[in-house]
Amino acid sequence: MEKETARIEAFSDGVFAIAITLLILEIKIPGAGSGDLTRQLLKQWPSYVAFIISFAFIGIMWINHHRLFTHIKRSDNALLFLNLLLLLGVCAVPFPTAVLAQHFGLSDQRPAAILYHGTYFVIAVFFNVLWTYASRHLLGKDADSSAAHKISAQYALGPILYLFCIALTWVNVPMSLLLNIALAVFFALPPHRAVRTANR
Amino acid sequence: MEKETARIEAFSDGVFAIAITLLILEIKIPGAGSGDLTRQLLKQWPSYVAFIISFAFIGIMWINHHRLFTHIKRSDNALLFLNLLLLLGVCAVPFPTAVLAQHFGLSDQRPAAILYHGTYFVIAVFFNVLWTYASRHLLGKDADSSAAHKISAQYALGPILYLFCIALTWVNVPMSLLLNIALAVFFALPPHRAVRTANR
Amino acid sequence: MEKETARIEAFSDGVFAIAITLLILEIKIPGAGSGDLTRQLLKQWPSYVAFIISFAFIGIMWINHHRLFTHIKRSDNALLFLNLLLLLGVCAVPFPTAVLAQHFGLSDQRPAAILYHGTYFVIAVFFNVLWTYASRHLLGKDADSSAAHKISAQYALGPILYLFCIALTWVNVPMSLLLNIALAVFFALPPHRAVRTANR
Amino acid sequence: MEKETARIEAFSDGVFAIAITLLILEIKIPGAGSGDLTRQLLKQWPSYVAFIISFAFIGIMWINHHRLFTHIKRSDNALLFLNLLLLLGVCAVPFPTAVLAQHFGLSDQRPAAILYHGTYFVIAVFFNVLWTYASRHLLGKDADSSAAHKISAQYALGPILYLFCIALTWVNVPMSLLLNIALAVFFALPPHRAVRTANR
Repeated sequence: MEKETARIEAFSDGVFAIAITLLILEIKIPGAGSGDLTRQLLKQWPSYVAFIISFAFIGIMWINHHRLFTHIKRSDNALLFLNLLLLLGVCAVPFPTAVLAQHFGLSDQRPAAILYHGTYFVIAVFFNVLWTYASRHLLGKDADSSAAHKISAQYALGPILYLFCIALTWVNVPMSLLLNIALAVFFALPPHRAVRTANR
Repeated sequence: MEKETARIEAFSDGVFAIAITLLILEIKIPGAGSGDLTRQLLKQWPSYVAFIISFAFIGIMWINHHRLFTHIKRSDNALLFLNLLLLLGVCAVPFPTAVLAQHFGLSDQRPAAILYHGTYFVIAVFFNVLWTYASRHLLGKDADSSAAHKISAQYALGPILYLFCIALTWVNVPMSLLLNIALAVFFALPPHRAVRTANR
Repeated sequence: MEKETARIEAFSDGVFAIAITLLILEIKIPGAGSGDLTRQLLKQWPSYVAFIISFAFIGIMWINHHRLFTHIKRSDNALLFLNLLLLLGVCAVPFPTAVLAQHFGLSDQRPAAILYHGTYFVIAVFFNVLWTYASRHLLGKDADSSAAHKISAQYALGPILYLFCIALTWVNVPMSLLLNIALAVFFALPPHRAVRTANR
Repeated sequence: MEKETARIEAFSDGVFAIAITLLILEIKIPGAGSGDLTRQLLKQWPSYVAFIISFAFIGIMWINHHRLFTHIKRSDNALLFLNLLLLLGVCAVPFPTAVLAQHFGLSDQRPAAILYHGTYFVIAVFFNVLWTYASRHLLGKDADSSAAHKISAQYALGPILYLFCIALTWVNVPMSLLLNIALAVFFALPPHRAVRTANR
């Protein structure tokens, strides 16, 4: 059933590619005659930061999806659904990104940041559910169980860490976003290095 | 002519992936300074519900499309057109979704729901036409005719059930939408289980 | 160099799939509280017609692109550019579609229709240029030259017929659009049948 | 690890295809009743020019990406990231394009042009970084080192030439854009010809 996985991967790649490219549409184009262009462009810096963080996040999710499917050899109906659930989270990312970009630095930045971290928390949960199911039922017979365990260990930290980001918004919103970026780097690390980093 | 089918599948996957990802663009971003953000975000809940239902619907259509093309082995001009017709329906989904999201709970929710169910009715008809044609002309020689019949039996119920959703809007609009969700689950079931469920 | 063509086809398929799916974004969502929804939805009928014509046009261009690349066996730099030129036309389609949808039936419908037919004229020219080049330099050694000639004969009519559509706008705009639809059907026909139809 | 590269290429192709197709969404649709349509359409000419330049630029970047990956035979984590960095630049292109289209010919055209050339400068730097890394670590054992050197020589000019475009905006903005177009043609040339052209 190799072919089955191939089409899931192709469809998922399409969704990742589109979601990552749509992010740019959320950045507003300053209109002509609405004041000094340079100043207007600079004033929008939270939009650029949000664009880059979300781009990095979706890109790194794609890399992780990729890693999982080098281990997943078979496919079944449950995998199709769990993968769709994950893609639901991926597709939603442009919305909290735009909300955060519009409200960062303003009075309502906390709920915007909670929505943002919350989306990532949900996606992290979906990643865990997908991998837990797949690693039990759909690996090849010659699967590298040590590598699979390292992935599980790295992913298990995801939901906890994003919950911590949410908690941090009550202390300091920009700090919670810096942690979010650090987490993207952490999940970008190959599992064996990430586990080592987390164990330090 | 395996290759012919491969390119139809790839093109269709692309359209499904884009249509499912565009859904998020229909959710409005609350602007800064237009009142309490949390309240504004919560007030938009019909948009989130519509997003999730439509996402599930398109995702499940993709799974079904996938299932059909594991049976369809050959391709011809008629298949190209019937498939385009189906994709026309898929591409249209973001529009009724956005209309429903904007009008749900308001005085005009009935025509919005009729447009929504009506789009699904048309897509269900197109699915039947495509499968009826393909199952007669384009299956492999060693086709599993029992599996094909189960798909036909499951799909034949589609247009009737979506018509019933439309009728239900005169009784109760939210109930008609709950039925719509239940139908998505029904069509997500593999045909052999779905037929069993329908025969109970 | 089979692989070279494979990546051109995949990239082109992506562009076709996206352009066809973006068309729906040009249809306006009637806002809540701006009057009777049913009437507003019906009033927008030119948008739906324009959506369907453009969908059919892009879909049929995809089928034709597909046909050409079953004959084209090799790739070179010129093919890459001529193909990009064709995709430039395909990508532009949502713009004249939206302009036509907004102005059909109003005082400015003629320039809108000219822009619409004009875009198709340019695309038809690009199709001819691509095919003329490819049919001379990039077919397989065992190419079916009779089939290639039939494609050339069918395509050569394209620019002339779309110019005729433009001319027709001075007589009657709706009639020019009906001819445009008829042309889509004509180009949807396999070349051998299309040539027969044209010779009648 | 051929397969690894295949999925990077497929994902990148998806991003290129989407970014190039989204450009059209930045062109405004003149509304009905806002004056003579023909005049309004003509007045928007900077949007069309910007659309075509950006289309050419992304198309030519795709061709170049293609060329690089005919040489790159292996994949590793660094390549995944450097490729994501490059795609970040590609995805951003619709934004400076729209800004330039809105401000070209007006008092704020200089900062708009600087943003535009600046984006291309950054992309050119990312292309150099990707290729420098890949050409040292990921070529096949039988790699054509002379071809690789020619690519390096051509790409090394990119950042310098786009910096020169930025400098030119203080002299003459339209001239800087003409140079930008000329550069697109230069990078479209196959490396061996481009190097010859540059050495003249």
